[in-house]
Amino acid sequence: MRIGRGPQIEVSRHAEMIAAAGMSRLAEPGDVHARALIEVLGLCDAYEFVSGSTALVVANLQQAVSELLESWGSKPGKRHLADAVSGWRARVNHDAVLDSVRQINRLGGGVLTAHHQGWPTQLNDLGMMAPFCLWWRGSLEPHDWPLQKSMVSIVGSRDASAYGNSVAIDLGSGIADKGLTVISGGAYGIDAMAHRGALTVDDQNFRMPTMAVMAGGLDRFYPVGNSDLLQDICARGVLLSETPPGTAPTRWRFLQRNRIIAALSESTVVVEARWRSGALSTAHHAVELGRSLGAVPGPVTAATSQGTLKLIKEGAELVRDAQDVALLMGHHDGYLPTETDLPFMKSESRAHDQLSANDLMLLDALPVRGWADVDSLSVASGLNVGAVLSGLSRFNGQGLAESKNGLWRKRASPSNRTPSA
Amino acid sequence: MRIGRGPQIEVSRHAEMIAAAGMSRLAEPGDVHARALIEVLGLCDAYEFVSGSTALVVANLQQAVSELLESWGSKPGKRHLADAVSGWRARVNHDAVLDSVRQINRLGGGVLTAHHQGWPTQLNDLGMMAPFCLWWRGSLEPHDWPLQKSMVSIVGSRDASAYGNSVAIDLGSGIADKGLTVISGGAYGIDAMAHRGALTVDDQNFRMPTMAVMAGGLDRFYPVGNSDLLQDICARGVLLSETPPGTAPTRWRFLQRNRIIAALSESTVVVEARWRSGALSTAHHAVELGRSLGAVPGPVTAATSQGTLKLIKEGAELVRDAQDVALLMGHHDGYLPTETDLPFMKSESRAHDQLSANDLMLLDALPVRGWADVDSLSVASGLNVGAVLSGLSRFNGQGLAESKNGLWRKRASPSNRTPSA
Repeated sequence: MRIGRGPQIEVSRHAEMIAAAGMSRLAEPGDVHARALIEVLGLCDAYEFVSGSTALVVANLQQAVSELLESWGSKPGKRHLADAVSGWRARVNHDAVLDSVRQINRLGGGVLTAHHQGWPTQLNDLGMMAPFCLWWRGSLEPHDWPLQKSMVSIVGSRDASAYGNSVAIDLGSGIADKGLTVISGGAYGIDAMAHRGALTVDDQNFRMPTMAVMAGGLDRFYPVGNSDLLQDICARGVLLSETPPGTAPTRWRFLQRNRIIAALSESTVVVEARWRSGALSTAHHAVELGRSLGAVPGPVTAATSQGTLKLIKEGAELVRDAQDVALLMGHHDGYLPTETDLPFMKSESRAHDQLSANDLMLLDALPVRGWADVDSLSVASGLNVGAVLSGLSRFNGQGLAESKNGLWRKRASPSNRTPSA
Repeated sequence: MRIGRGPQIEVSRHAEMIAAAGMSRLAEPGDVHARALIEVLGLCDAYEFVSGSTALVVANLQQAVSELLESWGSKPGKRHLADAVSGWRARVNHDAVLDSVRQINRLGGGVLTAHHQGWPTQLNDLGMMAPFCLWWRGSLEPHDWPLQKSMVSIVGSRDASAYGNSVAIDLGSGIADKGLTVISGGAYGIDAMAHRGALTVDDQNFRMPTMAVMAGGLDRFYPVGNSDLLQDICARGVLLSETPPGTAPTRWRFLQRNRIIAALSESTVVVEARWRSGALSTAHHAVELGRSLGAVPGPVTAATSQGTLKLIKEGAELVRDAQDVALLMGHHDGYLPTETDLPFMKSESRAHDQLSANDLMLLDALPVRGWADVDSLSVASGLNVGAVLSGLSRFNGQGLAESKNGLWRKRASPSNRTPSA
């Protein structure tokens, strides 16, 4: 739409955008009847038909839509197209659609359809559940949004523990620090902490640390307590929704929103989830879409861990830190974790780790207080005198033993004092 | 040895027991040269040869032992049999061996060899690393010890966290409560808590809740701070060691002791372990022996979790409770976990879990405060009037909605108030 496109195409794209915006007002997210109707009639005709401005033979449509739904493996149940249409028609208000489009433009955003440049093509993996369009606002135009391979969703419970919040903020910042984008739902708890963590990174070189997918319209920030956070995301990232401005978030829309989060991302990581948690729905969408799934474990005694522990037992990858997330996403980059990466590993390396079995037995036999001669070391260690002498010579060089008048003792060091169980 | 055995066999068994006791004094645990010598000469001749009371051609022996070690895939390195023998000979003291046997008998125990009834035959899986004998004391004769399939080792760090200690005591009691035996190392921290947990169960019906495998002689309780615990284990279970009374626990003996713990058990579960921990050696022995391995996760932010988290990432089964341990051990018993097994699952079941998508959308559309008519519910839900009416009829029956003068609202219940993210 930027260069070398004729006015005809622009008009067509514009009409499609308005039709998609209109359909997103009429049908609920994930409505397979609406999706089938669009497939059969095309976006513009479908919207015109549903709005009542086009006369079509509904009997033929019912059959075409039913066949399509059947071919998709959908079980529409008792609901017929006519019922669906009558439901949508109660919501028809074309002026409101045009107002919504003007409103999102005023808010610094727009409406994106699958025909637009910048459409996240990974959403097409949702098939009949793909959104009609995306309403967006924020700091980057769609063609500058990151690719799927650079996006990871971090989701979890709203009533998170201090532990979960702390892990989420660390993961968010660690992931953004690697130049990857954190996707979440803008909710309280884990979502908010993951966004906040991502926003802690310097934005000089990286303009899209995080993206939030909302369940309702983008004209207001929900929940209100996260207004500042969502404003920050607008300023340095993007807010998305498949529902137009003015739409309230409902339970259904929250549940459907999760499939968008999962589909946008290369991987999904659940930081904290109870046995029943909305975050698990995102996890299941990720698995259904063939995306990789990770989960952060927590104490087995905490109710807030039961969902993530269940996911790990069912095959989700155990995630400890941002590096584990990058590996989950397939960003190996020649990286192999080393013992120096984690501070607690360094301190526990011990001088005797490289000793042979014989030298280990000799080291055990050396007194810490007092002194021992070679013969008594032979008895204590079960090694013959020659093995004792050559071992003592090595220990002398390594600073593990010291001698005086032909007697030997262990040289004091913090790690040599007690045998470890 | 109890019924129908002749005196000749008893004499032979006694001599073998003394020889095994003697070998366990001379050679360190896991000494493959000693094991090979026993294979070549037999237990009694090997002990007599090493004690210096039998004259044999050492050149032939060296070759036979070397070939045997090679066939076992052992890499004895530069150490020759003659060197090994000269090391052992420095420790020869036959009277001390007889004293040790009398001592363990006085302590209410004995020396068990692979030829005795009651020998835990699963120890033979250690092959050339099998112990020469077991020194034991406690409340049950070997032929009454549990079978491998009923034993599970619970191991972990000595410097355990409050979380780890709490999980270990819960696991110990939960496992013993199922009639299974907890094996551990009698050390501080996780070991002690697992033993203690097992000892909390009623002993009327179950005489062997726990067993401790020690790194040193059983004449004294080590560590001293666990004396009461080890005394309790003696009274209701069994203490084992492959070293004779008077033997000090050394680092080498601690490490070798871990292979006995792993080999005795059907499964090994690590409750808490740092990045480097002796408990990981038990875990690796378990895997090498083909035993199933479990690990209890903990906070990813805790140094005390890093070893167990690594094990789970490497394939160990995530363990949350005693039920998970029983499943790990293969005790399915027709058991399938249900939602009512855990108290926190019950409370989170919600009335709307079984609703259809349409009814879920209708429920979302119902006001909590104020009232709505059927037409406005149709607009809010996107359902046609017929679907709204049939849904309201169902909700009325389920207590989810209430009506007044043809107007409807959601019926208040704790789980219906807020949409879940």
